[in-house]
This record gives sequence, C-alpha cells and structure tokens, in this order.
Amino acid sequence: MPHSTYSIGLDFGTLSGRAVLIDHQSGREIASCDYVYPHAVMEKTLPGEDRPLPEGYALHHPQDYLDALPALLKGILEKSGVDPRDITGIGVDTTATTIIPLDDQDMPLCFREEFRNNPHAWIKLWKHHTTQPQADRLNALAQEQKKGFLQRCGGKVSAEWYWPKVMEIAKEAPEVYENAHSIVELADWIAFLLTHEKKRCQFIAAFHAHDYQSDYGMDEDFLRALDPLLIRQAEKNQRWPQQKLLTRTGGLQADLAARTGLIPGTAVAVACTDSPIAMLSMGITREEDAVLIMGTSGMLMFYSKKDVCIPGAMGTAENALLPGHTLHLFGQSAVGDIYQWFVNHLAPHSYYLEAQEKGESIYQLLNRKIAAIPPDSPLPIALDWMNGNRCLLQNANLSGVMAGLTLSTTADQIYRALIEATAFGLKKMLDAAREAGVSVKSIRACGGIAYKSPEIMQIYADILELPISTSSCSQPNAQGSAIMGAMAAGSQNGGYDDILMAVAAMQCPMVRTYQPCSRHQAAYRRRYRHYCQMHQHFGVDQKEMTEEIRRPTFI
Amino acid sequence: MPHSTYSIGLDFGTLSGRAVLIDHQSGREIASCDYVYPHAVMEKTLPGEDRPLPEGYALHHPQDYLDALPALLKGILEKSGVDPRDITGIGVDTTATTIIPLDDQDMPLCFREEFRNNPHAWIKLWKHHTTQPQADRLNALAQEQKKGFLQRCGGKVSAEWYWPKVMEIAKEAPEVYENAHSIVELADWIAFLLTHEKKRCQFIAAFHAHDYQSDYGMDEDFLRALDPLLIRQAEKNQRWPQQKLLTRTGGLQADLAARTGLIPGTAVAVACTDSPIAMLSMGITREEDAVLIMGTSGMLMFYSKKDVCIPGAMGTAENALLPGHTLHLFGQSAVGDIYQWFVNHLAPHSYYLEAQEKGESIYQLLNRKIAAIPPDSPLPIALDWMNGNRCLLQNANLSGVMAGLTLSTTADQIYRALIEATAFGLKKMLDAAREAGVSVKSIRACGGIAYKSPEIMQIYADILELPISTSSCSQPNAQGSAIMGAMAAGSQNGGYDDILMAVAAMQCPMVRTYQPCSRHQAAYRRRYRHYCQMHQHFGVDQKEMTEEIRRPTFI
Repeated sequence: MPHSTYSIGLDFGTLSGRAVLIDHQSGREIASCDYVYPHAVMEKTLPGEDRPLPEGYALHHPQDYLDALPALLKGILEKSGVDPRDITGIGVDTTATTIIPLDDQDMPLCFREEFRNNPHAWIKLWKHHTTQPQADRLNALAQEQKKGFLQRCGGKVSAEWYWPKVMEIAKEAPEVYENAHSIVELADWIAFLLTHEKKRCQFIAAFHAHDYQSDYGMDEDFLRALDPLLIRQAEKNQRWPQQKLLTRTGGLQADLAARTGLIPGTAVAVACTDSPIAMLSMGITREEDAVLIMGTSGMLMFYSKKDVCIPGAMGTAENALLPGHTLHLFGQSAVGDIYQWFVNHLAPHSYYLEAQEKGESIYQLLNRKIAAIPPDSPLPIALDWMNGNRCLLQNANLSGVMAGLTLSTTADQIYRALIEATAFGLKKMLDAAREAGVSVKSIRACGGIAYKSPEIMQIYADILELPISTSSCSQPNAQGSAIMGAMAAGSQNGGYDDILMAVAAMQCPMVRTYQPCSRHQAAYRRRYRHYCQMHQHFGVDQKEMTEEIRRPTFI
Repeated sequence: MPHSTYSIGLDFGTLSGRAVLIDHQSGREIASCDYVYPHAVMEKTLPGEDRPLPEGYALHHPQDYLDALPALLKGILEKSGVDPRDITGIGVDTTATTIIPLDDQDMPLCFREEFRNNPHAWIKLWKHHTTQPQADRLNALAQEQKKGFLQRCGGKVSAEWYWPKVMEIAKEAPEVYENAHSIVELADWIAFLLTHEKKRCQFIAAFHAHDYQSDYGMDEDFLRALDPLLIRQAEKNQRWPQQKLLTRTGGLQADLAARTGLIPGTAVAVACTDSPIAMLSMGITREEDAVLIMGTSGMLMFYSKKDVCIPGAMGTAENALLPGHTLHLFGQSAVGDIYQWFVNHLAPHSYYLEAQEKGESIYQLLNRKIAAIPPDSPLPIALDWMNGNRCLLQNANLSGVMAGLTLSTTADQIYRALIEATAFGLKKMLDAAREAGVSVKSIRACGGIAYKSPEIMQIYADILELPISTSSCSQPNAQGSAIMGAMAAGSQNGGYDDILMAVAAMQCPMVRTYQPCSRHQAAYRRRYRHYCQMHQHFGVDQKEMTEEIRRPTFI
C-alpha cells in the first residue's frame, strides 16, 4: 500500500471559511473545520462608525480573512492528526467578483488610517449591489461598439463583476482609486497571503474582468472611451501576472507555515472562484455532463468541446479547467431562497400544526405533500424571478409571477409550482445551450437541496428529462480546491499531473440517481410551454410591469 | 300618529330562507327569522340514493321550500307579535336561474314515483354547472344569426340561465322533458305556492329567458333552429302569463293562511330574483348611483335613463324596477371567496399566533395589517379570476394570476393585492359602463364585507375614485321583498302606489361613507393600468393558459 498524501482545500464563502483535508488517493475527507467571520457582511455601517452605508452596500472586513487563514490551516492540521510532511498541496477558492483595493505593501487600503472611514477602500462583496449604473454605461458602450467580450457573458456584463465595481471606486472615491496600488479579486489576494507571490488567476481575469488576449478581450481603447482613468487600473493589473488554473502559484510562505505547523514551501495552487471548481469535485470530465449547485441560489455548469458562446449565459471561458474544453456557467438568482420565502411567508398555519404533530420539519412535510400531487393534476404555473433573472434575460429587476390560481388551489400546490418554476428556469437554460449546439445528457447535483430533498430532485429529473445523480458531499467547493492542491503538488509529491487522473481519484461519490419518469412527460411539457410563454410576456414584451415592483416610480 | 301597517319580505337563498317584517312607514325591521333547508345543496346523491350525481350538479329539494314557506310566515308573525290584520303585503325573492319542472298539478315532477330517481326532475340550482355545452351551442347559433338578445346579456348567454338548463333536460332526460307540464323559475313557483296564481315575473322572463316582445327577444325560429323540442317549452310557458314587478300577483291562499295565522287574501307581490331588489332596499332612485353587494361573490347594479346595452354586462332590463330606467347588472364570480381562500390556504402561521395573542379574528388582523401598507409601496398585482370571470370576459374557465412577487413580498401584501384585484375588477366594469355612456357617481354597498371591513371599503373608495356609503342592513334582499309587498298592498292598505315613495320610506339607512383619498390616486391608477394589461393578456391574448388549469387536457 502506497504512503498516503493529502491536500488541504480552502473555501471562503460569504459568511464563513472552511477547510477540508482530502486523501490524494481515495478522495476521502479526513477532517474539516469552519471559521465564521466575526464581521460577517457589513451592510449598515463600517466598524466603529455610526454613519450608515448606502442601501445595497455589502462589504467584508479583510481582518476576517487574515485571521481565518492561519486558524483554518492550523485547525485542519490538528483535527486530522496527519503528519504535516504528508500534506503536499493547498488549494483555495473564494466568492467570485469580490474585490479588494491594496496598498503598495499589498495590504488592504482600508487598514490605512486615512481610508478606514471610506467604504470604497474596503472589500466589496459579490453582492454589493450599487453598481448597476456603471454596468449600464459599460454595456451601452460595448453594445454600441459591438464588443466581442459581450458574447462571453451572455450579452451583458453583470453589475457584480470587476469593472463596474472598479468604475464605482473611480467615480465615488477618486482618492481611494488614486492611492490603490492594485485592485484585485479576493481569490488572488488569498493566494498572495499564502505564498507572497503576486499572481492573477487567468480564468478569473478573463471571466470576470474580460482580460483576454483575443477578440473576446476588453481592449485599452474601449476602457479609455469608457473612462480614461480606467487605463491606469488595467496597467496596474499587469503587476499581477496571469497564471493558469491547476498549476502551482508558489510555496507556503515561512511565517504562515510557522504559525500553523505546516511545512514551508508546501505547494499552493492558483486560486479560483468557488462555483467552477465544483466541476472538479463532482467529477465532470466530458461535455455531456453538467453540475447543478442547488443552494439559496443556483448554478449550472458544463463543458463544450466546441468553443461556442451561448446567448444568455452568465459566462464562458475556454481552456479554464479541462484542457480543450470551454466552460459554460449559468446561474439562477434564487432557488432555495424562493422555497424559504414560501415557508416564511405563506406556509399555512395548519401545516405547522401537522408537522408538529408528526414530529417532522415544515420542509419534510411540504416535500411529502408535493410528492403526493400527481403531475397531471391542475397546478398553477410560476415564474421563478422572485430575486430577478440572472441568465437568459439578465434582468435583476424582474419579479415573480404565478398564474392559474383557483379557489381550489392549495398551499402545497403553490409550493410545488414554485419548485417546478425553478426547474423550468433551468430547463430553459439547457434549451438555450442545445440551440447553441451543446446538449447536456446528465446532471450531477450538489448543495443542500440536492441531498436533503429527494422529492424535489425527482421533479427536477422529470421536468428536465435527464437523469440526475446527487452527491452527499457537504463541501464540494473545498473538495474541488483540494483537487487543485493535488495538481499543484504534482505526482512527485503524491499529487497529480493530469487533471483527469486527479478528478477520477478525488471526486465526491454520487449516492443516488433520479431517472426521469416518462409517464409525466406530457403534463410537464405542457406546463413548460406555458412557462415559456410567460417568460416571453413578463420578461420581454411587458417587462415594465414585472420590473416596476422593484422600482416604483410615481407619476 | 297613523295606524302602523307592515309587509313581510321573504328571501330564499342557497342554504336557507329568511323572513323579515318591515314597518311600511318607518322601514324599521320589526322581526326576522330563518329557515335552514334540511337537504341543503344536493351535489353528491339524491335523497335515499347511492348513485353519485355527475360532477358539477347542484340540486335543491322542493320539500324544503314547501316546509320553509309556512314555517317562515308563521314564525315571523309569532315573533313580531303584530296583529295579522296589520300585515297587508307579502313580497318574495329567490335565487335567480333556479328552475323546477312541474307536473300538471303544478307540483314538483320529482315527487312522482317514476321520476324521483331522475336528477333532471329536481330543482336545478343556479350553480348547477354542467350546462356549458348547451350554452356554447346556443351562443354559437345566436352569434351566427346576430341575435339581438345577446346584447342584453353582454354578448353571451350564461350557462346558468334558463334555456341552457332546459336544453340539458331535453337532451339528457327526454322523459322528464316530455312529462313536465311546465318548467319555471323558482321565484314564480314560490309566488304560486303563496297565491295559487300562475304568473311569470315579466322581468325574470325577459332577463333570464329572453322572453321579450322586442328585438331583444328570443323568437320561435331561433328556438326551432336550436332544437325543435324547445318550441314546446316556449308554448308551455304561455300557461304562466307574464306580470310586471311591483304589482299584486294575487291574495294569500286560504290553506296557507290557515296554517300560518295570516289573513287570507293578503296581497302577494310578483316574485323577483334576489339581487335586483337590493336596488329598492338600498334606496337607489336615479341613474348616477350604484348598489354593490359584497359577499362571497359580488354584484354591481345601476340604472340608466337611456336604454343602452353595456358590452360585457351580465344582464340588462328596461323598465324592470324604476319606471323609465334600464337596469344593468354586473357580477364578480368571487370576492369574499377569494379573501377566504387566502385565509384558508395561505395565511401564515405567525398571523394566527399574533391574532390569538391579541384576541382578534384572523380577518381583523389582516384588515389591520393591510390598512398599514402605504398604497405607494411596491405591491404585487393580481387578477381576481380565482372563480372565473363573470363579466366583461364571461369566461368561467379563467383563473387567477399574481405578478410582482419578490423575496420581500409578505403575506399581508399578497392579501392586499387580492383585495385590490377585486376592486380593479369592479373598476373595469364601471369603465365599460362609462364608455357606453353610463357614469356611476356614487356607490351604496351592502353585504358582510361592506359593514365588517372598513379597511377594505376605504381601499375600494380610493381605487374606484367614488364615495361609497355602507349599510348595516343584514337582509337587503328580504327588505327589498318587503318593499315589493308594500307596493302589492297599495296605499289603500297602508302600503304604496308609487315606488319612489315606497323606497324613500322603507330603504335601509346608510351608516357610513368612505370618501376617496386623492393622495393615493397615482399609485392606484398605475397599478390599475397593469391590471388592465394583464386582463388583456391572460383573458384574451393568451387565455388558453389561464383556462387550462380548469380543464387539463393531456396531449
């Protein structure tokens, strides 16, 4: 039996960071630990300040990451009890489009006395939502100039992405913009903290900042036309040279090694954003398979051999993870959040009493009830835009709709309609992919809903007409980061040189497969046609109505 | 002080009958009593039968009326304690379009041994809902032949009305049809039971059976083309000659007088259907005022001096109640039923706990909550078709819609949207009337919601931009029947010869007036425009979708 070696996977989310230690050979999780950020998401005020932040702000405190990093590394080592010499790789992922302005020491600008009161000097979290005007301006110019990078992000750059956030700093806080030595994605900064190497993940730079050396790139002339100030930032970004995913960015720096007990020089992988690396942990190695992440929101990802752009996709990146394959990302701005909204606001009194009596949770009761509703019974049809539409229409102002309500409609039918709506939303993305020549044949699902709600997964399989396998892996991102760590370590350190071999060994096992039931096909197809009609009406033809709820303008 | 005289008002509803004794001079209610039908609505089986009735059947038992009539008359006399000689008039109303096949003794055909097992020999209640195929056939032919009577009922004869029900008997039960000496409206039969006079109320014959001597009438050629069998029924109807409303149909027959203690020969008025006579009890005597009945469903009625037809109205009748005026009827198939649907199925757990803690009903709590929502806050917009659309579109298959749902939408906002939807539905009818040249200037509202829910009434006044007065009268129909009784009695018996004088003296007092608040006009008008857009989309352009929920047809 060969000597066991391991990688640490680090995953920095919105409210906490996680670490897992994964066996390179078996893929088994040896230990895991969490670190909850003490400052959480700062939406109301800055630390020690009374002045309220503008509506829509969502900031992070850099100290939380500086504290989380040694705590997680030390914690996972102690918890696992393995010899640190057997830990040969470290991989890391963070939330995407979370950016941080740094000073000339590559430390947070907000730590400087003169900037601590300026919200623009802090970490802007992915869901910092005041940059729509910047995105609108950028998109208008790009559309006017027919820029190729628009095809790489479904036709519109999201307000959450790199440049709209940088434009906001340049406009709202010129002193911060002026003094920022660089403004980088959080993932790259975390890799820097681990290694003291300044590298930008090529995938993130291309995907979220359009920094391509191709027709899909955002050129200097465009940036200059948008705002001459922005050229300076593009130049500063050159200080952080790009490096490909699944390679070694550097070795663990001495100070952090000393504080955690890990070996200095341990291979650290180029950092990635969180969602795409679930492609690794979920074992996707060919173009017919997709990963579905079902949490509060939703993500759908798959590869194509052809480098095509799918209209309405969230993003497209070639050669990012699997050599010779283009990665396609789609998102749903709310999935579990919609179910929870129903439970919080509309689940009837009687259901709570019934759940209490039966000793089950309200979700268990609801899942039991919806599973008992025959798909061919009369059911309402909903649009899943309660948190806007992230893909295909890319309109955050859209709102949800429910049609087909009668005096006989029951609460469980409404809940079921909401679940079907999120599945129909997904089906529409798969249809868009098929039209662009990319046909998904099966799905691997992870996330809380995937392994806790078999009833929902069966409805999904039936509606999508695809088999769906589910994983019980609770940390698909951290597991994916560990696979990146194994690639950074390389085969001479017990890791891997070939991503296909790494994935084959270290992927999360699938525990259950839901086969689509053809008996329900006709009923679901009929309702899906209605969903598509409503999609067109409320999302395109009469979108002002569905938008207005979010921006009442009084005449 | 003049000697007091009285009329009895009888009102036969769906589940019970009511009697009131009203003072001719003051309009004051001296006494009232109820009689609950032991057989209620027979929807599942006939009495003593196991064989299930078809879905949609709704039958009444004639014995319930035969028992209710003496019980109510005797009861009201005893309860009031007045001298029967001072009771000089009796008026009666029943549910509309409730029909009964009679034998040659003018007694129910279902009482005969050979027909007791045949559902078509029983009373078909207004909401007996299997006659849509008949109505469709009738309407198709009438549209083809451009028949004038269609203009009198908003363009379509309702499946609930006289001829579709008669057509169903002729087709489904030829033996019943053959042996029926007559098939009459319930109201006419009740008047017959009171007087032994065979008279048809001219208003009902015209309104619900298109038996007009004008271009608006249904002629024999048309009936013959529809089904030659129907001519026989039209001829049989001649055995019951028509008589105008607000006149004396006959005197109380001796046997009933003996059983109840009333004086034989007491004047009995021509019977009417229930809704229109609320025009009398609510004191409407000019064309600018409307009556709004807000119960489980809704009714809107008003007069016009010009004899116009309003497209989409439920019905139109000239000279029916107020001489020289045309009566317009509009209906909403669900109002309170929609509110109750929300309470039964969607009112959240927390609301029940809060109501319990505060010692209030769930409706009181909801009304308090919706009144606290500023009308200019972002609110969902609903279509009030949870029980179909009765007017303007006249499509019972339509279903409700709710648009503008977000993760921030709360249950009370949804409840408020449902209330606004019923008000918007009403506003659309008033708009249709205005376009046809009939402008309603104020509304008098009665029914449970009108006097129990001031918060809802204020929203209605704001949305309709009209003052709404409410009455606390609990029996507007029975009170209206008493006014008909007073007209039958005539002035020489302490009643009235002039309907304006009768109404002035005997109308229900208004207790409160809600003035529209112009501050909310812009917000409500904006939402109403969206309501109208959705009305067009889901009711006309894409109606298949909203219809389908009620008739799933599997491909």
